[in-house]
Amino acid sequence: MNILVLHGPNLHLLGKRQPEIYGHQTLADINATLDRNAAASPHEITLKISQSNHEGELVSIIGDNIDWADGILINPAAYTHTSVAIRDALSTVALPVIEIHLSNIYAREEFRHHSYISAVAVGVIGGFGTHSYTLALEAMIQILQKKLEPSV
Amino acid sequence: MNILVLHGPNLHLLGKRQPEIYGHQTLADINATLDRNAAASPHEITLKISQSNHEGELVSIIGDNIDWADGILINPAAYTHTSVAIRDALSTVALPVIEIHLSNIYAREEFRHHSYISAVAVGVIGGFGTHSYTLALEAMIQILQKKLEPSV
Amino acid sequence: MNILVLHGPNLHLLGKRQPEIYGHQTLADINATLDRNAAASPHEITLKISQSNHEGELVSIIGDNIDWADGILINPAAYTHTSVAIRDALSTVALPVIEIHLSNIYAREEFRHHSYISAVAVGVIGGFGTHSYTLALEAMIQILQKKLEPSV
Amino acid sequence: MNILVLHGPNLHLLGKRQPEIYGHQTLADINATLDRNAAASPHEITLKISQSNHEGELVSIIGDNIDWADGILINPAAYTHTSVAIRDALSTVALPVIEIHLSNIYAREEFRHHSYISAVAVGVIGGFGTHSYTLALEAMIQILQKKLEPSV
Amino acid sequence: MNILVLHGPNLHLLGKRQPEIYGHQTLADINATLDRNAAASPHEITLKISQSNHEGELVSIIGDNIDWADGILINPAAYTHTSVAIRDALSTVALPVIEIHLSNIYAREEFRHHSYISAVAVGVIGGFGTHSYTLALEAMIQILQKKLEPSV
Amino acid sequence: MNILVLHGPNLHLLGKRQPEIYGHQTLADINATLDRNAAASPHEITLKISQSNHEGELVSIIGDNIDWADGILINPAAYTHTSVAIRDALSTVALPVIEIHLSNIYAREEFRHHSYISAVAVGVIGGFGTHSYTLALEAMIQILQKKLEPSV
Amino acid sequence: MNILVLHGPNLHLLGKRQPEIYGHQTLADINATLDRNAAASPHEITLKISQSNHEGELVSIIGDNIDWADGILINPAAYTHTSVAIRDALSTVALPVIEIHLSNIYAREEFRHHSYISAVAVGVIGGFGTHSYTLALEAMIQILQKKLEPSV
Amino acid sequence: MNILVLHGPNLHLLGKRQPEIYGHQTLADINATLDRNAAASPHEITLKISQSNHEGELVSIIGDNIDWADGILINPAAYTHTSVAIRDALSTVALPVIEIHLSNIYAREEFRHHSYISAVAVGVIGGFGTHSYTLALEAMIQILQKKLEPSV
Amino acid sequence: MNILVLHGPNLHLLGKRQPEIYGHQTLADINATLDRNAAASPHEITLKISQSNHEGELVSIIGDNIDWADGILINPAAYTHTSVAIRDALSTVALPVIEIHLSNIYAREEFRHHSYISAVAVGVIGGFGTHSYTLALEAMIQILQKKLEPSV
Amino acid sequence: MNILVLHGPNLHLLGKRQPEIYGHQTLADINATLDRNAAASPHEITLKISQSNHEGELVSIIGDNIDWADGILINPAAYTHTSVAIRDALSTVALPVIEIHLSNIYAREEFRHHSYISAVAVGVIGGFGTHSYTLALEAMIQILQKKLEPSV
Amino acid sequence: MNILVLHGPNLHLLGKRQPEIYGHQTLADINATLDRNAAASPHEITLKISQSNHEGELVSIIGDNIDWADGILINPAAYTHTSVAIRDALSTVALPVIEIHLSNIYAREEFRHHSYISAVAVGVIGGFGTHSYTLALEAMIQILQKKLEPSV
Amino acid sequence: MNILVLHGPNLHLLGKRQPEIYGHQTLADINATLDRNAAASPHEITLKISQSNHEGELVSIIGDNIDWADGILINPAAYTHTSVAIRDALSTVALPVIEIHLSNIYAREEFRHHSYISAVAVGVIGGFGTHSYTLALEAMIQILQKKLEPSV
Repeated sequence: MNILVLHGPNLHLLGKRQPEIYGHQTLADINATLDRNAAASPHEITLKISQSNHEGELVSIIGDNIDWADGILINPAAYTHTSVAIRDALSTVALPVIEIHLSNIYAREEFRHHSYISAVAVGVIGGFGTHSYTLALEAMIQILQKKLEPSV
Repeated sequence: MNILVLHGPNLHLLGKRQPEIYGHQTLADINATLDRNAAASPHEITLKISQSNHEGELVSIIGDNIDWADGILINPAAYTHTSVAIRDALSTVALPVIEIHLSNIYAREEFRHHSYISAVAVGVIGGFGTHSYTLALEAMIQILQKKLEPSV
Repeated sequence: MNILVLHGPNLHLLGKRQPEIYGHQTLADINATLDRNAAASPHEITLKISQSNHEGELVSIIGDNIDWADGILINPAAYTHTSVAIRDALSTVALPVIEIHLSNIYAREEFRHHSYISAVAVGVIGGFGTHSYTLALEAMIQILQKKLEPSV
Repeated sequence: MNILVLHGPNLHLLGKRQPEIYGHQTLADINATLDRNAAASPHEITLKISQSNHEGELVSIIGDNIDWADGILINPAAYTHTSVAIRDALSTVALPVIEIHLSNIYAREEFRHHSYISAVAVGVIGGFGTHSYTLALEAMIQILQKKLEPSV
Repeated sequence: MNILVLHGPNLHLLGKRQPEIYGHQTLADINATLDRNAAASPHEITLKISQSNHEGELVSIIGDNIDWADGILINPAAYTHTSVAIRDALSTVALPVIEIHLSNIYAREEFRHHSYISAVAVGVIGGFGTHSYTLALEAMIQILQKKLEPSV
Repeated sequence: MNILVLHGPNLHLLGKRQPEIYGHQTLADINATLDRNAAASPHEITLKISQSNHEGELVSIIGDNIDWADGILINPAAYTHTSVAIRDALSTVALPVIEIHLSNIYAREEFRHHSYISAVAVGVIGGFGTHSYTLALEAMIQILQKKLEPSV
Repeated sequence: MNILVLHGPNLHLLGKRQPEIYGHQTLADINATLDRNAAASPHEITLKISQSNHEGELVSIIGDNIDWADGILINPAAYTHTSVAIRDALSTVALPVIEIHLSNIYAREEFRHHSYISAVAVGVIGGFGTHSYTLALEAMIQILQKKLEPSV
Repeated sequence: MNILVLHGPNLHLLGKRQPEIYGHQTLADINATLDRNAAASPHEITLKISQSNHEGELVSIIGDNIDWADGILINPAAYTHTSVAIRDALSTVALPVIEIHLSNIYAREEFRHHSYISAVAVGVIGGFGTHSYTLALEAMIQILQKKLEPSV
Repeated sequence: MNILVLHGPNLHLLGKRQPEIYGHQTLADINATLDRNAAASPHEITLKISQSNHEGELVSIIGDNIDWADGILINPAAYTHTSVAIRDALSTVALPVIEIHLSNIYAREEFRHHSYISAVAVGVIGGFGTHSYTLALEAMIQILQKKLEPSV
Repeated sequence: MNILVLHGPNLHLLGKRQPEIYGHQTLADINATLDRNAAASPHEITLKISQSNHEGELVSIIGDNIDWADGILINPAAYTHTSVAIRDALSTVALPVIEIHLSNIYAREEFRHHSYISAVAVGVIGGFGTHSYTLALEAMIQILQKKLEPSV
Repeated sequence: MNILVLHGPNLHLLGKRQPEIYGHQTLADINATLDRNAAASPHEITLKISQSNHEGELVSIIGDNIDWADGILINPAAYTHTSVAIRDALSTVALPVIEIHLSNIYAREEFRHHSYISAVAVGVIGGFGTHSYTLALEAMIQILQKKLEPSV
Repeated sequence: MNILVLHGPNLHLLGKRQPEIYGHQTLADINATLDRNAAASPHEITLKISQSNHEGELVSIIGDNIDWADGILINPAAYTHTSVAIRDALSTVALPVIEIHLSNIYAREEFRHHSYISAVAVGVIGGFGTHSYTLALEAMIQILQKKLEPSV
């Protein structure tokens, strides 16, 4: 199971400011947890993790892994609401995608309630802070095992 | 940890029709899985599980458990999009809430993209079929342990 | 041919007020006419008729008849415009549905022009007072005979 | 009872293409059925039937029959959604009008959900294929007998 | 003077949580005040008071009192914004209705600014906490005395 | 208790036209009733009453009484729907405000459903004709006594 | 001065129905008045008058008179709100146009408030019944005399 | 026949700037023409003419002439689009009103296409520069003679 | 290859006015160029070319050629934005359609950005003046050769 | 250089309330700073400063200075969002205008994001408290020197 | 003739996936065809071709060729709908631009119907798969020859 | 005082085209002026100036200077209207931001009236060409001196 993990813009700043609000966890911490969980899984899981502030770079990485990846975990951050290009990249590679958000975007400003990504994702997990990633990895493993019941 | 699990309208029919599309899992199966996972947890978890087709009954159950519950897992199903009453009930009891969907509502009809519930929930998990519940239970346990990083 | 007939909220008051405006026909009269017409039909038709002011009860009745009914006649009344739950119930049982209205809802207030039900119905009949039911029963019999031409 | 029956644009092509989808019934078949049903009625019914692709011609026919017709059955087809002129013609002659659709327009593209005609019609019947006409004729006979209960 | 007093969903929880925010007054306190004020009035006033979380039950109670009540005081709470069924019930019984809100709904979330009920009410009183009920009872007595000047 | 009472545009014409529709009460009558009620109150209440057709004058009066008034009763009439300036004046003086309407604005034209004033008012009373003022004065006295329960 | 006068759909029915509402004036009467006024003018005025229910015919007449007409008086009736084709015809011939309405369209249904024609007209006159034509003819004569002050 | 003529904001500047664009006619010129036309009429016509930049003053003048005026000619200028107060004043005095515009407002910015005044006016004349007033005076005389045909 | 070429309303006026703006090319010139290009093609191409100002006539021509045509080139002109009837005709005949515009409609007024035709066309070519037709003919030949790559 | 400085409604209250929030600066302080800066400029600058709560008065002042002023600094305050009359006054005098705001209106309520004034202003400066005026005066001096580069 | 050809995001993946749907043509194939067609032209044409997933890079390339290019062919792909920056770049270089789409974007999701690019393009060609480029090159050559008739 | 100055897309082209419209000032000129003004200030000011066409690069630069910068001057150009990523970057670094525009964006196309940046900026300056930068630098210095009055 090859899983591509993508972090969108500004996530490299995580944990660098106002720890009393955003916590002390950095992107490196998230990645370490993901690696640890992947390693702990009974399945053979390889993670390839990238962060980029560039919409175009995220598009490129998705395309570059068209033949490598079995599934994609993506926290598109701000590009959730503005990027048709990332949506098209995800829809072109035609792999199972899980959309991740640290915060509950549906409880924030109106413009954050719309996601261009959701329509091409299997599912969405948001609002659980850095733990959203852990849940998403677990869900992806299930999907790749094809053990998930088809949903309504 | 006392966790209230609520299933909204029509979910009692799950698995009763078109298994080739919706799978064979019934609501009873979901509940059994939840109970099993709760029992397997290192934490002492008590689940109280209800399904109702009545908006008013869901409101009542939420209010009735105001002093019992520590957290609420709710799949509001169709009431996601139309019930201010359930939203108000959840906001009155002021407990951590996780909104669950079997399907990815953001990839369905336009009117299903809006949830009255999300604004009063900690987070949202949707699109993973019956596995959405498993992930939500795991997330709630984390929340109740207060181990989650505050999110952006 | 087993046909479920559902009357939505407030229809139990029919004929109880302002007969000069709404006529003298009560819900009992409508039901009697339906029974008479069913009996007069050359086909063996069984009607099961319910009225409820509860959205949840209407949902339950639909689900309870998943294996009994061959078709559903429904006058959703006020729930036409607000109930996703009834729509989902109808779409889950996957039976032919006819949407009935006493009045011409498209000639009334703007908010009555939208129906959540129409999208899961075979057809709509409205504006003919209590006679709308008679027409709908006749149409359902045709549908169940599968004699209807497929429509454009 | 003089009843004007109007078929809107493109209906002359009915049954000429893709019978596996649209059925084999042609407009001539519909008209023949209407004539047969009119003849079979205990009431003395005269039908005058026209089809036109021209909005203006439909307007003219309505005006030309201002003194002849007692009621109008109209399937405005595409003009349902775009013609204020036909609406005004119907409202000027001030006769009972029934709006007919072969398909369930409320279950099709968004722009087909709005009808300029409904507001000046007694009622609407749609979704029953060519049988919609039969139901409408029956309803019109009832209306002209003034036996219909006033509706809510 | 027979006055029906209706409390909508979640109002049974009043005073049960966060008294520093919502005050210590419970629904029982409101009802007691209403009874006291009714008794203190020079007019003979009978109050019938109900609370329900069920839209359908509120509809039923309104219909059940069609012949008993002279006027209706209703705090529709969350159903203010979503219930066409309650609106239709109120409009069917054709009695003077006063719409009550504890809070100033026009100063809260956008979706709370619209009320389905207002269009069938004589007037609206909101924002004065439990005192809104006292004012509404006083207003209803005036209305039933038919001493109110017609308004602009 | 110093209470400023403001009447908006066109209210000086009250009772001057079509008494069969608008009643015979004039603005002077309303003011007399307010004065009588203030005098009859066990609290020491001073009323300062003004009417103006000028948005700017209403703004000025509000500002001029920044140090005198303890609360403001305002019937903004037409300016309800168009005046940000009066809203800003009310919000600047930061006093408790009650918004009054003779008619039920929510049952009139769509554009009258929105009030710029409500968001800076404690509460709204409308639809009770000239009696709306009496109710509002009573409510203001309660507010100034700080006896009102905080509302939901 | 060659002036083209165009009457849109349904205007041929004027005065044929409900004289107590629409008056007894027919289209022939309007045309006679126009001819009389043209003859009485000190200017040499030739009128060419047409009525059509066909959008396409109105388009054709406008184009056919591209070299003959000096100005156009048009009552587009229902096509006011739906015809881009007539707008384009008027804009292609690049002549002064006056838009005429018998009724005050801005005081009728919402959809009648928008005119595709106004943007290519010099001015609009509406609400004065058949007298609207008389005023429009007078205005056109002024325009053709080029004596009109340019307007703001 | 007493006719009130009202000029809205900025019209006092007419003819003071850019004569090559707006012409040389001043407000005084318009008024002189109106007086001349009134004097030349076979009817006894008294004009009372005012200009104001104040919405409130226009409201006051309308109210002040409630018993004097038989009809009102008003060019509300910018207040056309923003004043509910002037609309309410006009609707309170319940006199025939003609709305006048120098320019064709429907061919200008989108926000100028909506008029709060039109709904309470008999008719609208716009786009003919200062000649709009002449046409409006003529129309008002007709209206006051009650010779106008009722319009569609 | 039988190709139907349709020109919509007002196109017969092309080249008749303001050649400095619209050029000197007439519709006849366009048609001559099309014929010349068809003749020059290595494929055997028969063109049938019509222009009409009538929506209904365009509908009729499309239907009349249901068995003759292999493809349709259409410049719907003004009907692009208003005709559901032409859309339905095109969709009924189920042939490959190319939508042509002389101008770039997406760079003009907002209401010209929406086309009812595009959804039933293979592709759109606009903004190249009379050369748009040449490009469209070339594209249609490709389509009919079925050599076009399926598009994304 | 003659510069007109206009302060809109409620600005006379500046510094009179809640200094901890709004600061201690009064309108007099702002005016004094402006005078001081004007005097300190190497250019000969005359300021004429007015504040008004009246939309009409602001309109009048603008018109009254049509021949005196070379430029206008205006903080329209609440009238920013509602006054077409002030916009028209500014556009009639055809002078360079700078729109000033103490607060950043684009970061406040949605309805404050739209300004009727901006479209007729050279530029906008907002969010810098009383310093916004200083910046605007400096910018106006630059504009009047015609030294500004034309902008994109 | 120097022509810049730009391919937007994800187009580098063309032909790499699902050839049964998207065909076997790759971006290299498209470029080869363009080069071949340019070489075959009687005009001396130099093509400079780039693909980028980066909005910023596309902006840069446009700016870098401000002095080299005579015209631009651009398939903005996903950036069609979201990039004001590319629009501004194209509008700054002020060269003739043709907007190209492989698919018919007007027949896809609603959000793809709007293009930020069209308003600054001469024309649009879409829906013809890789052949869209061939047509666009041909059109550009015509434009650069300045032989195109000005369009309506 | 460390101030980061950011120029958005296309600004590198400033002064390179159509000097008669856009002036001769280049980005280098603006930067030189900023440096000169910074040097001339009595405060010790260090400027770090960057231009980028890449949204992602602007995001990166903002993040990279999280510990260096005391304030940010940004002309987001086209990204003003489309970039949530830059908004989030600015909001993450939590520094005072001034939004700069060369042109008055509120007087241009509708889509330019909305800025994603304004909500996270202290203030906005636009419409003064290259002088907007000078004003913004002056304003930032004031802000950093914390001498600015808090604004309304």
